[in-house]
Amino acid sequence: MKTMEPNTIQTDSGFSAGERDAVYKCIFNRRDVRGQFLPDPVPDAVLARILNAAHHAPSVGFMQPWDFIVVRDAAVKQRVRDAFETANLEAAGMFEDEKQKTYRRLKLEGIVEAPVGICITCDRSRTGPVVLGRTHQAEMDLYSAVCAVQNLWLAARVENIGVGWVSIIRPDDLRSALGIPPSIQIIAYLCVGYVAHFYQKPELETAGWLPRMPLSEVVWIDRWQARDTSDPLLGYL
Amino acid sequence: MKTMEPNTIQTDSGFSAGERDAVYKCIFNRRDVRGQFLPDPVPDAVLARILNAAHHAPSVGFMQPWDFIVVRDAAVKQRVRDAFETANLEAAGMFEDEKQKTYRRLKLEGIVEAPVGICITCDRSRTGPVVLGRTHQAEMDLYSAVCAVQNLWLAARVENIGVGWVSIIRPDDLRSALGIPPSIQIIAYLCVGYVAHFYQKPELETAGWLPRMPLSEVVWIDRWQARDTSDPLLGYL
Repeated sequence: MKTMEPNTIQTDSGFSAGERDAVYKCIFNRRDVRGQFLPDPVPDAVLARILNAAHHAPSVGFMQPWDFIVVRDAAVKQRVRDAFETANLEAAGMFEDEKQKTYRRLKLEGIVEAPVGICITCDRSRTGPVVLGRTHQAEMDLYSAVCAVQNLWLAARVENIGVGWVSIIRPDDLRSALGIPPSIQIIAYLCVGYVAHFYQKPELETAGWLPRMPLSEVVWIDRWQARDTSDPLLGYL
Repeated sequence: MKTMEPNTIQTDSGFSAGERDAVYKCIFNRRDVRGQFLPDPVPDAVLARILNAAHHAPSVGFMQPWDFIVVRDAAVKQRVRDAFETANLEAAGMFEDEKQKTYRRLKLEGIVEAPVGICITCDRSRTGPVVLGRTHQAEMDLYSAVCAVQNLWLAARVENIGVGWVSIIRPDDLRSALGIPPSIQIIAYLCVGYVAHFYQKPELETAGWLPRMPLSEVVWIDRWQARDTSDPLLGYL
């Protein structure tokens, strides 16, 4: 093992009000994009920046368990799209009546239209069987890879690039389309590209699928579902 | 079901170079904080902002499965800390020789020192048994809650607030400390507060626990572990 080295302190670590506002603007304006992809290529320099953002996600025990498969090949994208179609037909049948009608009207992916696909995976054995921080919560490495997805998504947004997460797909179909071995866990398949526009609200909210919950309904103080109504925090939610 | 309403397009959706840089600065300067917490209280307005950022994470089928338990009570924090101690002793014993010595030297949590704890959970049955987007990947709701953690973490960083994720703890001990029912899945317990400083590098990197992997080692093109060395993307990694 390498000996410990002194860790330098961040000297430019403060954020201005403008920088703060930029991060919140990014968080609030991020959307799951399905239908507005443009064919414009994503420059490699930009793609590298968003991948690097993903690579700087937190990871349990600093194991960095992720890999990123960048998909530009039309035939590969078509196989992924076919796998979506199969799953989506099954999925639609699971909803009843009106909900099913709405479901079938929704556009839920942009696999072929998006110039780039990115599959994020998790190599659970990357740094050996015992991982610092994973000893009592086995799923922590998967969660690290999910943090990489969210970093990538936010970095893409600030590059004015849309991202859509395709989850209506059998992982084994994705595995076979991308040649991913059984030892590697698939986390996400993302459609990535410039877009005609971003919507103000999530598409499922606008479609009346589910409403946005008030933040105040999901915040508790000190214990599950406990809340002293005089707590001043509640006035800010 | 509500009828569909027109979805307005974002009109202020572009990001300037300065805004872009702010988001990358936030992503690269985010740290897992264990030992530099200050006792200064986190204002409720700031706490509400970072919770709202979390609440605007992507969620599968727009189910927003998360709850946030804000922990300020010293006795509750102490119970969480005790649960960490129990798990950490077990964890240390799982590492061998030099690695165990290094492990025992590391400070891995700031549960009691941090003025605020935030527990993020996932209510898997919040919107019923069938969830759009979860039909073929059952863990998507857990991943949504993880995205909320990452949003909160980044928003905190830009508020100059440190966050540390405590995962060396038995979920059932946390459940009992916070009164969380068995039907609710625990995702994360975060230590939150202002800090004396942020480190330039992750503490585990500096401690020689594991090195930062080169980005180029985890990026593939079109298929798992495939890479045409002439692909211009590789020059940017």
